[in-house]
Amino acid sequence: MRIIVDAFGGDHAPHEILKGARLAANKLGVEITLAGDESQIRACAASCRVSLAGMDILHAPTVFQMEYEPASILKEHSDSSMSVGLKALAAGQGDAFVSAGSTGALLVGGTLLVKRIRGVRRAAIAAVLPGNTVPFLLLDAGANSECTAEMLENFALLGSVYAQKVLQIANPRVALANIGTEENKGDPLRQETFRSLKANTKINFIGNIEAREIPNGGADVIVADGFTGNIILKLYEGMGKLMTGKLKKMFLGNPLGWVAAVFAAGGILKLKRQMDYKEYGGAPLLGLSRPVIKAHGSSDAKAIFHAIRQAKQCAKSNLAQVIKENLKA
Amino acid sequence: MRIIVDAFGGDHAPHEILKGARLAANKLGVEITLAGDESQIRACAASCRVSLAGMDILHAPTVFQMEYEPASILKEHSDSSMSVGLKALAAGQGDAFVSAGSTGALLVGGTLLVKRIRGVRRAAIAAVLPGNTVPFLLLDAGANSECTAEMLENFALLGSVYAQKVLQIANPRVALANIGTEENKGDPLRQETFRSLKANTKINFIGNIEAREIPNGGADVIVADGFTGNIILKLYEGMGKLMTGKLKKMFLGNPLGWVAAVFAAGGILKLKRQMDYKEYGGAPLLGLSRPVIKAHGSSDAKAIFHAIRQAKQCAKSNLAQVIKENLKA
Repeated sequence: MRIIVDAFGGDHAPHEILKGARLAANKLGVEITLAGDESQIRACAASCRVSLAGMDILHAPTVFQMEYEPASILKEHSDSSMSVGLKALAAGQGDAFVSAGSTGALLVGGTLLVKRIRGVRRAAIAAVLPGNTVPFLLLDAGANSECTAEMLENFALLGSVYAQKVLQIANPRVALANIGTEENKGDPLRQETFRSLKANTKINFIGNIEAREIPNGGADVIVADGFTGNIILKLYEGMGKLMTGKLKKMFLGNPLGWVAAVFAAGGILKLKRQMDYKEYGGAPLLGLSRPVIKAHGSSDAKAIFHAIRQAKQCAKSNLAQVIKENLKA
Repeated sequence: MRIIVDAFGGDHAPHEILKGARLAANKLGVEITLAGDESQIRACAASCRVSLAGMDILHAPTVFQMEYEPASILKEHSDSSMSVGLKALAAGQGDAFVSAGSTGALLVGGTLLVKRIRGVRRAAIAAVLPGNTVPFLLLDAGANSECTAEMLENFALLGSVYAQKVLQIANPRVALANIGTEENKGDPLRQETFRSLKANTKINFIGNIEAREIPNGGADVIVADGFTGNIILKLYEGMGKLMTGKLKKMFLGNPLGWVAAVFAAGGILKLKRQMDYKEYGGAPLLGLSRPVIKAHGSSDAKAIFHAIRQAKQCAKSNLAQVIKENLKA
C-alpha cells in the first residue's frame, strides 16, 4: 500500500511532514510518496537528518498557499504539491492522499480531480472528535455551508460506513444535530432530514441530538450541515483549549499548585492526551472515490503519522466500494 | 421596585424559588410578588421555614407544565402561575418578571401578553455565558430557529444595549457567529447580515467571529440565528460539564489524587465558580416592552437570587426605553 503525502502543506512543512512520513514508513508498513519540490525535500531531509530511504518523491515545483482561491488549484496552481499529489492519486499511483494544506483547495481538487463516488451529491469533511469515553465522527464539518435534506442523508450514510470500517464501531448510532430531541424540532431542513433518516434502513438512526449531549458520547456519527458542523467543531476546539488553559492556570497560579500538579500528573497527562486532536489523525474527505485525508494545519510529525495511519485504514477497508454498494441498494 | 416571580417554574419549585426570593428581598432591596397557588406557597414556606414577610402573593391556581404546547399559555393555561405573572407585569403591577418554567411558553406569553417594543421583529433569548476572563452575551440562543438579516440586525442592537446597560460594558464589541472571519464567509444570510451590521452606526460591529474564539473573549455580544445560538449554548454547557467531570475523575481516579485536590482546592473552586451558570443569573428575553428573565430550569435558590438581581438591573436601567430610542434613530 502506498500513501501519497503533500510534503508542503501546513504550518510546519516540510520538516514535520518528512518526520511524520518517516515514522509511518517505519512503523506502519506503508510505502510513501512525497509530493513537492524534490531539491527542497532532499535539503530539508539532510538538515533534519530524516532518511528518505524507500520513499519516492513526486516532483512538484510550487506550493499552494493558504490565501489562494481554492478553485485555482485546478489551473493556476496545478503544479503545486497538493494538485500534483491529488492527480497522482486519481491516476492510481497511490492508495490514499494526506495533506495539511488548504481545506478549500483540497475539497475542490478532491471533488474535481479525484472525483466523487457515483450517487454522492457533495463530498463532506468529517472530523473525529474526542468524546467522554470514545471518539465520535462529526460531518459535515465545514465543506458545505448550505445543505439539502438529501445531502444530509448522504452524509449520514458516508459517516456510518466510515465509523464501521475505519473507527471499527459495529452498527454505529447516527444522530442529527438539532435544537431538540423530538421529531418536529428545528427548522424545515431538520424536520425533512429527520423523516428521511428515519426511513433509511441502511443507517442506525437514533434521532436528534442536542449539542449538550454531543461531548457525552450520545452518538457515534453526528450529522450536520457544514455551517452548524463547523461551529460545533471549532467551539469544541476552543472550549478544549479554554479548559486546559484554565487547568494550567489553576496549578500554576496557586502557590502550592505545583504540589497538586505533581500528585495529579498522571491524570493531567491522560486528560491532555484524550483531548489531543493529534492522536485522532486528520479529517477524512468523505464521498470521494479514493481516500483523501486533511491533516490539521498545525500538524507536527505525530499528527502526520496518525493521519497516514488513518489513510492506510481507509484504503485497506475499501471505503469507496462499500459506500457505492450502500448507495445503490 | 417590585419583581414578580413565578413560584412554580422549574425543577425545584416552589421551595428553591421561595428561598431565592427571600434572599433577594433581604439583600437586594426589592419587593417581591410571588405568582402561584397561595395555599401551596404558604404551606411550602412554613415547611421550609421561609418567611414570607413583606412579600405579596398573586394567586394562580395551576402550573404550566413543561410538556404543554407553548401557545396554550394564552388560553387553556391562562390561570397558570406563569400566565398570571406575565399579565400582572403587562398591567404594570411589577417592574420585571422571573420564571424558571417553559422557555417556549415564556416566549409566547412574553410576546403576546407583555408585547414587543415597537420596531422589534422578534424577541430573542439572550444567554450570559462565562468567557475566559469576563462573561459575554449570546443571542438568539434558541427562540427563532429561522432568521432574516433584519432580525439578526435587531438582535445585535438588543444585545448591545443590554451589554451596556446591564453588563456595564462600555462600547460592547458585537460580532456575528460565522465559519470564517472574512466578509464573504458563510451562507447568504451571514453575508447579508455582515453588510447590515457593518453599516449600522449604533453598533460597535467588529466582524465575524469563529466559534473557536467564542470562549476566548473574542466579543462581548455574539449574534446568531436561534438554531446556531442554541447549538453554541448547549455545546458550551455540555463541554463545561464534560471537562469538570474529567477534572473530578482526574483527582478521584488517582490514588494520590486527593492530595492534589487538597493543594489545588482554591483553584478548583475558582474554576468551578467561573464556569457556574448560576452565578450569571438567567437568560433575558430581549425585545419585550418590560423585562422578562428566564431562569435555568434546574435553578436553586442561588440561581433564582441572581435572576432576580438581574431583573432588578434590567428594570433599573430602563432597557426598553433605550432600545426604543436606538431603533428609532
